[in-house]
Amino acid sequence: MKLTRRVKEILSWYESDNPGTKANLARILMEGRLGGSGKLVILPVDQGFEHGPARSFGVNPPAYDPHYHFQLAIDAGLSAYAAPLGPLEAGAGTFAGSIPLILKMNSSNSLSRLKEGADQAVTASIDDALRLGCSAIGFTIYPGSDAMFGQFEEIRELSREAKSKGLATVIWSYPRGGEITKKGELALDIDAYAAHMAALLGAHIIKVKLPTADLEQEEARRIYEQTKVPRETLTDRVKHIMQASFNGRRIVVFSGGAHKGEDAIFDDARAIRDGGGNGSIIGRNAFQRPREEALALLDRLVRIYQGKE
Amino acid sequence: MKLTRRVKEILSWYESDNPGTKANLARILMEGRLGGSGKLVILPVDQGFEHGPARSFGVNPPAYDPHYHFQLAIDAGLSAYAAPLGPLEAGAGTFAGSIPLILKMNSSNSLSRLKEGADQAVTASIDDALRLGCSAIGFTIYPGSDAMFGQFEEIRELSREAKSKGLATVIWSYPRGGEITKKGELALDIDAYAAHMAALLGAHIIKVKLPTADLEQEEARRIYEQTKVPRETLTDRVKHIMQASFNGRRIVVFSGGAHKGEDAIFDDARAIRDGGGNGSIIGRNAFQRPREEALALLDRLVRIYQGKE
Amino acid sequence: MKLTRRVKEILSWYESDNPGTKANLARILMEGRLGGSGKLVILPVDQGFEHGPARSFGVNPPAYDPHYHFQLAIDAGLSAYAAPLGPLEAGAGTFAGSIPLILKMNSSNSLSRLKEGADQAVTASIDDALRLGCSAIGFTIYPGSDAMFGQFEEIRELSREAKSKGLATVIWSYPRGGEITKKGELALDIDAYAAHMAALLGAHIIKVKLPTADLEQEEARRIYEQTKVPRETLTDRVKHIMQASFNGRRIVVFSGGAHKGEDAIFDDARAIRDGGGNGSIIGRNAFQRPREEALALLDRLVRIYQGKE
Amino acid sequence: MKLTRRVKEILSWYESDNPGTKANLARILMEGRLGGSGKLVILPVDQGFEHGPARSFGVNPPAYDPHYHFQLAIDAGLSAYAAPLGPLEAGAGTFAGSIPLILKMNSSNSLSRLKEGADQAVTASIDDALRLGCSAIGFTIYPGSDAMFGQFEEIRELSREAKSKGLATVIWSYPRGGEITKKGELALDIDAYAAHMAALLGAHIIKVKLPTADLEQEEARRIYEQTKVPRETLTDRVKHIMQASFNGRRIVVFSGGAHKGEDAIFDDARAIRDGGGNGSIIGRNAFQRPREEALALLDRLVRIYQGKE
Amino acid sequence: MKLTRRVKEILSWYESDNPGTKANLARILMEGRLGGSGKLVILPVDQGFEHGPARSFGVNPPAYDPHYHFQLAIDAGLSAYAAPLGPLEAGAGTFAGSIPLILKMNSSNSLSRLKEGADQAVTASIDDALRLGCSAIGFTIYPGSDAMFGQFEEIRELSREAKSKGLATVIWSYPRGGEITKKGELALDIDAYAAHMAALLGAHIIKVKLPTADLEQEEARRIYEQTKVPRETLTDRVKHIMQASFNGRRIVVFSGGAHKGEDAIFDDARAIRDGGGNGSIIGRNAFQRPREEALALLDRLVRIYQGKE
Repeated sequence: MKLTRRVKEILSWYESDNPGTKANLARILMEGRLGGSGKLVILPVDQGFEHGPARSFGVNPPAYDPHYHFQLAIDAGLSAYAAPLGPLEAGAGTFAGSIPLILKMNSSNSLSRLKEGADQAVTASIDDALRLGCSAIGFTIYPGSDAMFGQFEEIRELSREAKSKGLATVIWSYPRGGEITKKGELALDIDAYAAHMAALLGAHIIKVKLPTADLEQEEARRIYEQTKVPRETLTDRVKHIMQASFNGRRIVVFSGGAHKGEDAIFDDARAIRDGGGNGSIIGRNAFQRPREEALALLDRLVRIYQGKE
Repeated sequence: MKLTRRVKEILSWYESDNPGTKANLARILMEGRLGGSGKLVILPVDQGFEHGPARSFGVNPPAYDPHYHFQLAIDAGLSAYAAPLGPLEAGAGTFAGSIPLILKMNSSNSLSRLKEGADQAVTASIDDALRLGCSAIGFTIYPGSDAMFGQFEEIRELSREAKSKGLATVIWSYPRGGEITKKGELALDIDAYAAHMAALLGAHIIKVKLPTADLEQEEARRIYEQTKVPRETLTDRVKHIMQASFNGRRIVVFSGGAHKGEDAIFDDARAIRDGGGNGSIIGRNAFQRPREEALALLDRLVRIYQGKE
Repeated sequence: MKLTRRVKEILSWYESDNPGTKANLARILMEGRLGGSGKLVILPVDQGFEHGPARSFGVNPPAYDPHYHFQLAIDAGLSAYAAPLGPLEAGAGTFAGSIPLILKMNSSNSLSRLKEGADQAVTASIDDALRLGCSAIGFTIYPGSDAMFGQFEEIRELSREAKSKGLATVIWSYPRGGEITKKGELALDIDAYAAHMAALLGAHIIKVKLPTADLEQEEARRIYEQTKVPRETLTDRVKHIMQASFNGRRIVVFSGGAHKGEDAIFDDARAIRDGGGNGSIIGRNAFQRPREEALALLDRLVRIYQGKE
Repeated sequence: MKLTRRVKEILSWYESDNPGTKANLARILMEGRLGGSGKLVILPVDQGFEHGPARSFGVNPPAYDPHYHFQLAIDAGLSAYAAPLGPLEAGAGTFAGSIPLILKMNSSNSLSRLKEGADQAVTASIDDALRLGCSAIGFTIYPGSDAMFGQFEEIRELSREAKSKGLATVIWSYPRGGEITKKGELALDIDAYAAHMAALLGAHIIKVKLPTADLEQEEARRIYEQTKVPRETLTDRVKHIMQASFNGRRIVVFSGGAHKGEDAIFDDARAIRDGGGNGSIIGRNAFQRPREEALALLDRLVRIYQGKE
Repeated sequence: MKLTRRVKEILSWYESDNPGTKANLARILMEGRLGGSGKLVILPVDQGFEHGPARSFGVNPPAYDPHYHFQLAIDAGLSAYAAPLGPLEAGAGTFAGSIPLILKMNSSNSLSRLKEGADQAVTASIDDALRLGCSAIGFTIYPGSDAMFGQFEEIRELSREAKSKGLATVIWSYPRGGEITKKGELALDIDAYAAHMAALLGAHIIKVKLPTADLEQEEARRIYEQTKVPRETLTDRVKHIMQASFNGRRIVVFSGGAHKGEDAIFDDARAIRDGGGNGSIIGRNAFQRPREEALALLDRLVRIYQGKE
């Protein structure tokens, strides 16, 4: 499989990684309909831990079956499929070699009274990732929360081991807790900070939410205003997030958040594309729609990243 | 021993497991009077840690003897016998090869002032399971409790090692603690969530309590009502639990809870059977009755799962 | 599965073994049409290493397929199937739980110029046995050969690890090399010595060839003649082999050797049965016949051990 | 990447392997111009250890550069590239993700006075394979040689670890030494025996030389003649090698041996294809030609396996 | 159990050993009818490896049963029972705690063409000794043989591990091979040398044969004659052996050799007693007699060591 010039350029950013990790990044970047473009659409299905099965799959019952998601990602021509241990075990044999897998190592949990800043269990190991044939591990951090420090140390160890075995690391970076207001979780300064922390921690792929134009921290506001960082349009803000992610030397994908209207999703994607972001990680907005609708939506999303819409 | 078509189908769900783990699942599924049917009745005797000996065995003193339970499970033609380290050590030699064993690795403890959400000690190892000839390990999680995260990490390690050595994993999933009300512990949404978490953690066999028609979490209630999940009858609710367990791709057995009337037990079993559940895990309702009564009760239970009553 | 009185008696001989090893012995003793009788018929297919594929399977080409042998052992109602790593890997998933497996750990090799006393490679590990769901390991020793001492040390380590993990050990004991004449390999004194050595080494199941009435060693001849050990009939000689195997406290099975006539096989089996031997390990005489003939032959063999013929 | 039906069928043969190993086999089987067909052409460049640099690369000096071979394999649309540690390290970064890699773990060595049957050093580890992003390890055995037993034990350990980490195992099986004559090294019975041994040792992919119609071992000759194994044509002989490789349940590729004429190479490939073999492993015949000639040759080779010539 | 003054004195010689090893020596010294006296009679049954079953047990067939020897040693009130792995496994459960056990780790083998000086396999491990409840390990060395150096290194490792785990070490020291004449094997200088070597190697208990008055080595003869070491009577010679064994600071027991007349045995014992030896290790002279005769013989032997005859 000849890598494209763009994929080779992206791999060149990861200059301290061994060829195994680069090969797994290449597998993700060369997979599916966006393969070779440097753009990605990833299907994550880890809401079971966070929201439970009914809130996750109730509106589209076929999605209770773990095979459904493997098949959806393959049929839509996506770049990778991310899920916790159990769902990957339930399909990794049938779909071996059919799509790059990301083993989600920790997950939030809405049954716990320890909200927001609560710790998360690490529910899988690097050996699990290897035996299941995964290309990467995925890990969520909550910058701002009291649990943050423990999480940083967990991902330090997991990521170190993953990198030595030729796996890539994806960090989901969701600011919350501490002194961050609810509104502030999406503020541009906080989101950029979150993306930067993931980069600082050694992530190969960073996953953040799309930011608003708000600014949360007073010290940051002064700089943003003084240096006139453009932030009116979403495209501007995506550009800034990429800047905060080693000036674009790290792959960044953006999440769609809760189920929302199709037009909003497409507008978001155009902004990500035009702002130099690498793509979308789209879960509920895909698998909570009936399969045919989901495939249609993912088809348009892919076409947007292909620059066709 | 030729496996039935149904047992082969069930084994096919465990597509990431090695033949050793599949063989141990097959041993449980082919054992006893329900052998080959895909239905199971398991005898668990782990109440000693949780309730102490008198509350567990006082009403039926022969049950103080660990051999009593091995013999009861064998004579009743059950599928497996589950107990902590000590009781298995006390009978595993005499009854070697006579019935599949599940080594219960952790247990609640009512002497502790740390109630409900309290952590549990891991009181056995995978090497113990191998030297005692067990087919599986058993582990209890308390989704919702503060101890949940530590438990998830314990079962991650135990399960990873068990799977590599050809053993199966059974997870007892009992929601409690956190913001869950006492009533909510049995609510349909919470129970489905608990079963789903066990599946996410990589359980081969999931053990939950039978759910009520209640709904505990507000966000979940909206989905259940919007998507009109049937929940009037127990059969409906069992169907939903199976759905939440990878759409029926995992074996799920239901517990009978506290000692209760025989008719209630039989009605429960019919609902489990008709809802597509895999069977019962029945402890106190069996061993707290005199042996002859217990055998008669288990005989009817088996007959129900055989579709004869 | 209730063990028979006879199987419990046999298990009682293995008084230093843990319940895991006893359970695996019980699985072999309770399997198939002879299950519970204390008699065994085992299918070994390890001739590939020793004689190559054509000499092993050429006369019955379906036997080139590893699944053929699993199916043959199951359909004939045998007690266990023994083979090296590769063939077990090729079928252990499909036939998981369908028949006890014995992982053959070493094998002779007729390509080597190091004949007879040549060492053998150990081609599998205890972890392989566990992940493939085996009940026992199998190992060949060549008492008399120069390689004997190395082999004894290999089986010491393999057997120690196997026993700690709940697996059983089967030793194939074939005298050869050293000062043993070709004729002497089957001599009664040498065969008894070979069975005894396997017992001394800690074998749970001993596999030797049927002995002739010859006596090989001069010092032994004096004792046999002085103590008038009966050795005219094969039944007499089997009795003596059992005596040499801890006075019958170890399971001993006898091999049929090269392909031969059916009547000879049945006469051998009657002698084994009447002499108190535990059964036959029959490879080439089974799988080198067309499947229907092999099933008919094995059916009669089983019937002989059942005392029906 | 949707696997073809044929690739899924091939993966089903490896029923004891974890999804990681299956995914790596799938990567090889789906790569290049033959991707999905079940046919393979692999470029091996491990002659440096065996023949030194001048004998290997002198006739085509650009081939002294390790990048040359990666590029050749990619440009020719081959299935995988196999080489020792050093050459892979020299290119695995530049070509990460561009072609499946096989890390050759041992190699012959013509500087040693210990010829033919001599042992080989293991010059790489499983951790190397993972950090370089390899899909498989490669290992050479010399059935017949005195070194054979040590080699079998080396590959046992390497293969066990590789399988647990999700890698595949390729065994190069070259009979030599012992009592095998020079001519006998290619004899049909010996070659089938060699392929069978690799399968017995747990190889996923077997590499042997194309056999002649000779028969080397007297005992084998009798069987081949008695059972009338067709061996006149090379196609017949390839069929027999596939039969000896678990009746076609293992992937077998054939080597071209020393540099030879193009027509001979194409005739060989047609015989491999028509006999049900999985493809060619072609080293010197490719890289010892000028690049354009090599590409033209490999193009025709691929076209033959595509059934177009 | 209060130790006698004599036993405490003996234990004081082993001043570098940990309390575990001392406790195991105490168990042997306090066991049976000679318990507390500092005298020992040990039953060794390791002739199966060396002479085969018929030569060992043919004249007294009940002795084919491993339980026979445990029972004999217990009923005769002996100090310990020594045997290889298999026979100990066959009875260590039934007789757990009934008599101190010595696990014989290596054994000669008369099937091998490698006679006399041949190496011996180590057929058990320290872990085996611990799991079987042994008090000591036993090991044979052949001072003079080519195998001696390898044996010394084996016992170095076994003894080091045994001592670290609280076990005692018994060394059987039998000079043979090298330049030693057949007659010289029992010569006083050689026997003393053999006892001394065992002491040098760290044995807690030394087992040698009773010496003749011969002197084998010329250099030794000069010293013996010059220093007028008394050697006419067996008592004299036993005194010298004790002298050679750290001047009596090590326990030394003497073997009776081949089956011989009762009077000779009793005379030997009186000489051992009067020469300050610690006792007899008597195998074939015990178990090759009918049980009642053996018990009578052992009764007199014990009475001699008690000073009553």
